[in-house]
Amino acid sequence: MAMLVASRRLSGGSRTVTTSLLRWFSTSFREERDTFGPILVPSDKLWGAQTQRSLQNFEIGGERERMPEPIIRAFGVLKKCAAKVNMDYGLDPAVGKAIMHAAQEVAEGKLNDHFPLVVWQTGSGTQSNMNANEVIANRASEILGHKRGEKFVHPNDHVNRSQSSNDTFPTVMHIAAAMEVNSRLIPNLKQLHTTLHSKSIEFKDIVKIGRTHTQDATPLTLGQEFSGYTMQVKYGIDRVLCTLPRLYQLAQGGTAVGTGLNTKKGFDLKIAAAVAEETKLPFVTAENKFEALAAHDAFVETSGALNTVATSLMKIGNDIRFLGSGPRCGLGELILPENEPGSSIMPAKVNPTQCEALTMVCAQVMGNHVAITVGGSNGHFELNVFKPMIASCLLHSLRLLGDASSSFEKNCVRGIQANRERIAKLLHESLMLVTSLNPKIGYDNAAAVAKKAHKEGSTLKEAALNLGVLTSEEFDTLVVPEKMIGPSD
Amino acid sequence: MAMLVASRRLSGGSRTVTTSLLRWFSTSFREERDTFGPILVPSDKLWGAQTQRSLQNFEIGGERERMPEPIIRAFGVLKKCAAKVNMDYGLDPAVGKAIMHAAQEVAEGKLNDHFPLVVWQTGSGTQSNMNANEVIANRASEILGHKRGEKFVHPNDHVNRSQSSNDTFPTVMHIAAAMEVNSRLIPNLKQLHTTLHSKSIEFKDIVKIGRTHTQDATPLTLGQEFSGYTMQVKYGIDRVLCTLPRLYQLAQGGTAVGTGLNTKKGFDLKIAAAVAEETKLPFVTAENKFEALAAHDAFVETSGALNTVATSLMKIGNDIRFLGSGPRCGLGELILPENEPGSSIMPAKVNPTQCEALTMVCAQVMGNHVAITVGGSNGHFELNVFKPMIASCLLHSLRLLGDASSSFEKNCVRGIQANRERIAKLLHESLMLVTSLNPKIGYDNAAAVAKKAHKEGSTLKEAALNLGVLTSEEFDTLVVPEKMIGPSD
Amino acid sequence: MAMLVASRRLSGGSRTVTTSLLRWFSTSFREERDTFGPILVPSDKLWGAQTQRSLQNFEIGGERERMPEPIIRAFGVLKKCAAKVNMDYGLDPAVGKAIMHAAQEVAEGKLNDHFPLVVWQTGSGTQSNMNANEVIANRASEILGHKRGEKFVHPNDHVNRSQSSNDTFPTVMHIAAAMEVNSRLIPNLKQLHTTLHSKSIEFKDIVKIGRTHTQDATPLTLGQEFSGYTMQVKYGIDRVLCTLPRLYQLAQGGTAVGTGLNTKKGFDLKIAAAVAEETKLPFVTAENKFEALAAHDAFVETSGALNTVATSLMKIGNDIRFLGSGPRCGLGELILPENEPGSSIMPAKVNPTQCEALTMVCAQVMGNHVAITVGGSNGHFELNVFKPMIASCLLHSLRLLGDASSSFEKNCVRGIQANRERIAKLLHESLMLVTSLNPKIGYDNAAAVAKKAHKEGSTLKEAALNLGVLTSEEFDTLVVPEKMIGPSD
Amino acid sequence: MAMLVASRRLSGGSRTVTTSLLRWFSTSFREERDTFGPILVPSDKLWGAQTQRSLQNFEIGGERERMPEPIIRAFGVLKKCAAKVNMDYGLDPAVGKAIMHAAQEVAEGKLNDHFPLVVWQTGSGTQSNMNANEVIANRASEILGHKRGEKFVHPNDHVNRSQSSNDTFPTVMHIAAAMEVNSRLIPNLKQLHTTLHSKSIEFKDIVKIGRTHTQDATPLTLGQEFSGYTMQVKYGIDRVLCTLPRLYQLAQGGTAVGTGLNTKKGFDLKIAAAVAEETKLPFVTAENKFEALAAHDAFVETSGALNTVATSLMKIGNDIRFLGSGPRCGLGELILPENEPGSSIMPAKVNPTQCEALTMVCAQVMGNHVAITVGGSNGHFELNVFKPMIASCLLHSLRLLGDASSSFEKNCVRGIQANRERIAKLLHESLMLVTSLNPKIGYDNAAAVAKKAHKEGSTLKEAALNLGVLTSEEFDTLVVPEKMIGPSD
Repeated sequence: MAMLVASRRLSGGSRTVTTSLLRWFSTSFREERDTFGPILVPSDKLWGAQTQRSLQNFEIGGERERMPEPIIRAFGVLKKCAAKVNMDYGLDPAVGKAIMHAAQEVAEGKLNDHFPLVVWQTGSGTQSNMNANEVIANRASEILGHKRGEKFVHPNDHVNRSQSSNDTFPTVMHIAAAMEVNSRLIPNLKQLHTTLHSKSIEFKDIVKIGRTHTQDATPLTLGQEFSGYTMQVKYGIDRVLCTLPRLYQLAQGGTAVGTGLNTKKGFDLKIAAAVAEETKLPFVTAENKFEALAAHDAFVETSGALNTVATSLMKIGNDIRFLGSGPRCGLGELILPENEPGSSIMPAKVNPTQCEALTMVCAQVMGNHVAITVGGSNGHFELNVFKPMIASCLLHSLRLLGDASSSFEKNCVRGIQANRERIAKLLHESLMLVTSLNPKIGYDNAAAVAKKAHKEGSTLKEAALNLGVLTSEEFDTLVVPEKMIGPSD
Repeated sequence: MAMLVASRRLSGGSRTVTTSLLRWFSTSFREERDTFGPILVPSDKLWGAQTQRSLQNFEIGGERERMPEPIIRAFGVLKKCAAKVNMDYGLDPAVGKAIMHAAQEVAEGKLNDHFPLVVWQTGSGTQSNMNANEVIANRASEILGHKRGEKFVHPNDHVNRSQSSNDTFPTVMHIAAAMEVNSRLIPNLKQLHTTLHSKSIEFKDIVKIGRTHTQDATPLTLGQEFSGYTMQVKYGIDRVLCTLPRLYQLAQGGTAVGTGLNTKKGFDLKIAAAVAEETKLPFVTAENKFEALAAHDAFVETSGALNTVATSLMKIGNDIRFLGSGPRCGLGELILPENEPGSSIMPAKVNPTQCEALTMVCAQVMGNHVAITVGGSNGHFELNVFKPMIASCLLHSLRLLGDASSSFEKNCVRGIQANRERIAKLLHESLMLVTSLNPKIGYDNAAAVAKKAHKEGSTLKEAALNLGVLTSEEFDTLVVPEKMIGPSD
Repeated sequence: MAMLVASRRLSGGSRTVTTSLLRWFSTSFREERDTFGPILVPSDKLWGAQTQRSLQNFEIGGERERMPEPIIRAFGVLKKCAAKVNMDYGLDPAVGKAIMHAAQEVAEGKLNDHFPLVVWQTGSGTQSNMNANEVIANRASEILGHKRGEKFVHPNDHVNRSQSSNDTFPTVMHIAAAMEVNSRLIPNLKQLHTTLHSKSIEFKDIVKIGRTHTQDATPLTLGQEFSGYTMQVKYGIDRVLCTLPRLYQLAQGGTAVGTGLNTKKGFDLKIAAAVAEETKLPFVTAENKFEALAAHDAFVETSGALNTVATSLMKIGNDIRFLGSGPRCGLGELILPENEPGSSIMPAKVNPTQCEALTMVCAQVMGNHVAITVGGSNGHFELNVFKPMIASCLLHSLRLLGDASSSFEKNCVRGIQANRERIAKLLHESLMLVTSLNPKIGYDNAAAVAKKAHKEGSTLKEAALNLGVLTSEEFDTLVVPEKMIGPSD
Repeated sequence: MAMLVASRRLSGGSRTVTTSLLRWFSTSFREERDTFGPILVPSDKLWGAQTQRSLQNFEIGGERERMPEPIIRAFGVLKKCAAKVNMDYGLDPAVGKAIMHAAQEVAEGKLNDHFPLVVWQTGSGTQSNMNANEVIANRASEILGHKRGEKFVHPNDHVNRSQSSNDTFPTVMHIAAAMEVNSRLIPNLKQLHTTLHSKSIEFKDIVKIGRTHTQDATPLTLGQEFSGYTMQVKYGIDRVLCTLPRLYQLAQGGTAVGTGLNTKKGFDLKIAAAVAEETKLPFVTAENKFEALAAHDAFVETSGALNTVATSLMKIGNDIRFLGSGPRCGLGELILPENEPGSSIMPAKVNPTQCEALTMVCAQVMGNHVAITVGGSNGHFELNVFKPMIASCLLHSLRLLGDASSSFEKNCVRGIQANRERIAKLLHESLMLVTSLNPKIGYDNAAAVAKKAHKEGSTLKEAALNLGVLTSEEFDTLVVPEKMIGPSD
């Protein structure tokens, strides 16, 4: 049955009620209820009435638009912690423990198939909160020997106790994002940083032509060039870390509008502590719950940091593909790892495919950032109702940046080699080495040398000797690119 | 085994090679080859070596990031047409027909499971082109009684004959987008337009207070207000249609760099004609193939039209939720359909959830537009290598806007009712009706009436009678909102 | 004192109070009034009380943020036409003619100094409409022999007759934008198109290496490469023109909320006709005035077209700077005009400064597009109140794109020369010419040739002769890049 | 003559060479030279040949597009510090002191009229660096009794000593931005924060209806609502401050490509210290000069913080205008200061014009952020050449946000009053107070009460008494909104 739902959603197009109905009758159902009355739900699914209504009311985007898995898992974490804290405040321990058990399964991703709702639902994420409540309630009921749909464990009264969608959803947004930052993005950026740094060491003695305005300029080492990339990634890590203090703030305890109505004093502190313990991350209760429900500035901020990281990686990816361009008709200074056939015709063709995947990811992250900004700026009164979209976009950006950094590091940067011959050839052909002659023969003579070489397509040395401004030995003593790569004493 | 790959990609995190390997050894494989040598491929899958390499080299984003289905289907259409045209140019008819058969299955979505690659791959989409070539070649081989992997029908020599990834991928981008525009977006926008128009007729006699700067202003009819929304959607349709002439241009025939090397004269025209016949859409060959490979301005343009539609729908969605706000403490002029429980506490609470889903979609479309713009502007020389990302974002926007328009129409607009009592109450309380008194009692007296009413919280009539500037009958004759909703004769 | 504020704002930077004060005490003031009471206005300025209040209430951004000049001029056009039409509806001809005279001066930019208000004011542009009304009223009064401030010609009753800020401001937005499109952007894009086209003709016989993924690919002519740019610009012109039908729609006649209250039937048609006659552009009255006040989708749409043009020009600018990179260590295929010293050291250094100015403009246009989109999506009820920002951004984009296209054409494209020697050298070194050998010696042998040449850094011919797969004559007959630039017969 | 240039640029349109020439011949000129040869420069201007060439080669955007004043002033600061440090390294003290004197005048804005160049020039800002060098050299020469154009003090050898445009321009970008952050943005945000905070105290006892999904929800105090805004602004300040460590890093000392060629060891540290002393801000030398020239991630990051602030202020501005909507037909909970006539007809009409200016600014900041992101991601090799655009956009955003925050605080927030009567009326009409009855009469009875009240348009109390579920006294004891604004004990 789940298959049928899934396939219906995947195909997306078939709107004929008859077909749908036929499909639905081909499997078994049970009745679930909410305040709108009874509704049929697939027997093999743990979700309840409100989830089912959302499925039917929001046929937008299909299967791939399901609420991101980190959100589902974070609901598992949160509901487990809520049950734990609620037991302190009087929740029946048998029920509480069953909820914790069921919630743990959600946290581990074991019940992912029971979370069919898409991002494009109510803007508070209420329906996904109810999806979690319903699945956990039914699962906990089963654990306690009761049937699905009987509400022995109640989705609202037990699983959602002392909570509102309006505080749970922002809470799982923060949990999910902080976990993705810590477990995926930062480690992968650090690995990329480490590898770039080791390349900057490896290449520290390779002097090469610099390029400004894409034009030949004074020399630097390839290691210095890579040190710039290394620093960009390091600062990128710093930038993301800078935003964590506000990501670690949890809205939980604010309930419907931020006041905490229907919670007991101290509930907010306890639940933040429980989440912190569960995740080993330093979550705290939000300083101001009104801000935490009504705005998602923390997500806009983190997205801004990711946008900066994307900017950096776009630059690095572009540089590497241009420096590796060729093999004969490009710059050709770098040799990139060859991971797959570039072409059935050209054996030497290496396409910088990792750079391409990376820079595409960067463009997507920049776009997601605008979507998050638009959503973040459109909250009204006590609640921002662009929550699922904001969550989805940030988690998308985190996942893509993390994965792409890893792929780029592993399949590209790690294997980059310097084409020392090519680098040396370009360096020594460059006219700008003439700069070194200024102190000896004066600017005007040096300019004459460079102009002559440029006009005649000769080397600087040939031009200098031809003009008779210095001897071969003098030239060789003066024109030493290795001395042009730092300040003088 | 496919399952295993899928699940591995879904979980995303498990990077331990050992675990992966163990999983892989638990099923059966066959050997496929490309110019890099042999590689193991799951036996039950039709893809070949290059697809397999991409799977391993681009672990970015997981399962949900697979190349959008409309692209896969468009590859089916294109490869079918290519085989047909290639038979005119000498392709063995037996092979050609088998390719057409296999490609048709791809076009119908029957082989979707054999297209595992993600968007974040090489920026030319080469790997997805090879995925299509490999799947169709293996399937066609089977149709002809040969085994997978034997290359009886060859992915390059037969299926990709006279083609390059560099022209096929932009071609399928255009086919996929044009089909989505025509089959999903435009029909759904038209339905929304029709329903909004019928609402503007239904509400044509309901005079209500206007609001500018969010403040009370002169009256209009609710029908007039809805006529503005109707016009926005109509123009939105026009805007999208305006971009089609450039979407209907196909790059096919340009091959590697736009010159058409390795094609025969006329191939480009024939294939565009074949695609047009197959899809019943007026595709033509691109006027300039260099532009068609190196730039995706046509996608940036169409995305710009979608961005405008998103702007319109954001406005409409916002208005409707504010006009429906309440039930007691908002504007309360509209009664929105109640589709699901708003709250377990407040029976009358209707959350404008369809407006919320719609406006979230609009924000996403605006974000995707920026991603497409960034990708579109970053092409270099003969090829833009942000193709899969650009395609994915535009198709995402098309799907979301189409689906959300439909959902919004069906689950919200169609059922909107006017709260006539509330509308009338607000209208008659409004101070700005005083405008009608100007001709009779002069601006100064009218202003005095309005100021008195505002200060005392009284009605205009009470204030006017109290000030003695006219009689009750005079007031009733003059203050007629119904006369304030258009120019005078 | 009001004066003082004003001058401080005008000077913009100078924050020294003393200086400001000195300046202000050296001039005289007159009293103007509005419904808020009297206020001092500089004697030498034509503006009135409401302009003065805005100056004091919106100290945002300083002098450079003044309402763009095309808006001021469009107010001149509109107010002239309004007076003309109002005379048909009973406006005293003496007053009407004086208004027309004064408005003509505004339209010609003669009274620019009397329009001090910044963009960041009320979102309806009311204050700029009043600025126009006040200046024209005072100027018309003077023409008729009356004093400033006496309101012999009244800003509201006469100059603004039958109008509201809510319809005049969108009207001048459309007039200003359509005029800028027609007088600046399109002519400059056409000139750029013409020059690119002539370059594609000039370079039609220069065969060069193609580049895909920034890597060496099969050849094309430099003329073909430029034909892609030419086509991008041509389509860009088409894209902008496509949006004009909606830009030519004028909101005038809608007055406060779109109903046309306080106008006479036919006023809207007459004024659109008058504006069309005055500007020689095919303006018409907006089909739906509610849409025309409440949304600025037409601006979002036109901005979308500009965004696409920016995308194209970014690509072209990037290509040209990379193709012109060097002189020794880059691609070096193009020689760009040298317009200014690149460096005091390197005589041959040409910085592609025109490409840089152009691509910076493109980035700004992309940013303005997002601002316009955000503003356009945030209208509420009967009025969008992001009007001045939307107008300012679109006019900024139009001006920058128009000017930069012209500068780029004149100072760069026109003077581009092909470096034929360098192009030929790269072409003949390229390994991918090996493709031509496939039919003769088979793919495997051809691959062996290319691999050997790549490994040894030799030419293809050397490798082929060494391997003994063909003779020197055969090689020369087969490897002819000139035959690789189109489909075969 | 300066006038003439300015006016020509302002009008922008006049392209007729003849007219231009006539204008130019009407005043006096002197000859200046650079390596391109001699060129005429207006006699009354201090700029030299390279500035003049840029003026002629970049006719883009006109007068309003001049390089932002904070950049010019920062050049003054930097050149003064460079002269000071260069004297340590052997610069003739007489020349050094004259340069310091002249640079101080630039830093004070006294020579603004001598900086005519627009943003849209070379992407390194070289021409503005030369503009500074030329103006300071000529002014210093005059101070020492020499003539303009004689180069007694040389723009390159003296003023630009040990510097390159490639390090000076990023340095002035950072100086200008950090100064604007510290002197304009942060103080104004702090003032806004203080005022919002005082409002949250002032309103702390006013219980009002909450609104989620724009629908009636449980109550909170108006003070709590404002505390959310207050927190948003506080975090906004924190976010901007978080980015300062990277803004305080100066590129100076990197010269052409980041290596520091042509500087002495220690120059970079000394100049950063000098700038820190001069500006009283903790500037330091950049940790990695390659990153500091090739990327502007620090600007993208700061812009991201401004984008978040814009998101916050957009939300606050929207809330305040909606809460202040009315006076009769909106929410009407806030009374906003009336700063100017809203309408000549409606005496009570207050347009929330400060909210409008603020939210327009926010949209512009979001747009500028995208422009900066696009520019920041498009650097190549050793130099990002989108510098002037990036600088201009960030300074624009800083100025607008700073000014608009100040204007909003002063002209709106400070004067906001609560409409206590209206707030109380809405609160007590609200059906959601029924929540308080749950413990006493059970959910079902409570729901019946609310449904009856909603259906009949009665009060909850009426409905409850009618249904006979409790007494009037019981109702009054239980339904106390003041007890619903926090967690229970």
